Amino acid sequence: MERKRARWAGRVLIREVTQDDHDAIWRIIGPVIREGETYAIDRDISREDALAYWTGERQHCFVVKDGGQVLGTYYLRRNHGGGGSHVCNCGYMVLPEARGKGLARKMCEHSLRMAGELGFTAMQFNFVVATNLGAVALWAKLGFDIVGRLPDAFDHPREGLVDALVMSRTL
Amino acid sequence: MERKRARWAGRVLIREVTQDDHDAIWRIIGPVIREGETYAIDRDISREDALAYWTGERQHCFVVKDGGQVLGTYYLRRNHGGGGSHVCNCGYMVLPEARGKGLARKMCEHSLRMAGELGFTAMQFNFVVATNLGAVALWAKLGFDIVGRLPDAFDHPREGLVDALVMSRTL
Repeated sequence: MERKRARWAGRVLIREVTQDDHDAIWRIIGPVIREGETYAIDRDISREDALAYWTGERQHCFVVKDGGQVLGTYYLRRNHGGGGSHVCNCGYMVLPEARGKGLARKMCEHSLRMAGELGFTAMQFNFVVATNLGAVALWAKLGFDIVGRLPDAFDHPREGLVDALVMSRTL
Repeated sequence: MERKRARWAGRVLIREVTQDDHDAIWRIIGPVIREGETYAIDRDISREDALAYWTGERQHCFVVKDGGQVLGTYYLRRNHGGGGSHVCNCGYMVLPEARGKGLARKMCEHSLRMAGELGFTAMQFNFVVATNLGAVALWAKLGFDIVGRLPDAFDHPREGLVDALVMSRTL
């Protein structure tokens, strides 16, 4: 049984996370965090803290499934409080073996619809590592503008200090 | 008795916060948060949550005193984890009655020294409300560049939607 806010995008199902998904989510976010090339999260963070960061109760979290297997996940939350609370923020991760299938695009498109339904009027990515060219190109295709460039803000494990981008779009 | 990391800047003393300062800090940050014009923090946040945000144990917090009275406060923390942990973030607030005395400048100068001593190599302000012209001008004078402009990112109580700026400098 799939839960509320489930949508089919082709064969792919995107639905809200349940407690039962935590193992599957950790199998996705664990390697991405340990690799340390795309997210500014401590590489040695514990499973528990990483899951709290990704699926915490003050945000929405979704998984994307294909053939019954969880292949990707994203969170959606407000980016700031007070006068900034009309802008949301998302993060997306795909299982390393499932990259290149367009799942990040499907998740982002889903998140743009969800954000609108939730009443947000803009979406902002605070920290897109500039060497993550695939992501930068994808967000640009999906209507995001580069609104900031943070010089040398990310210490890439292989490339050293590289810029990070702030990208945003209205909904 | 003033604590470690106390420095005199003219007659003004800046030192690390103690539990005893919480009432004085709330008298500063409470009105600024309730006013809602410069920080993207929920205006109805509780005293407890506001103090946790400002003085939390995973960051440094300082007060500035003049004539024995706490007139301002700032926090200093890393802005991101992982590959972003060489960049710090600060927030500064001054008691409404004590504005215009140069205390924000003194706190910022102090924070730049502290950040260097703590091993950070850059400082970034993530969300400077563009209508806060005094702050924008002061940070520029102190060496910060505008590295991003977030369109309509802040819903100002009197001005409506205004931009927010990302400002940063190396240390």
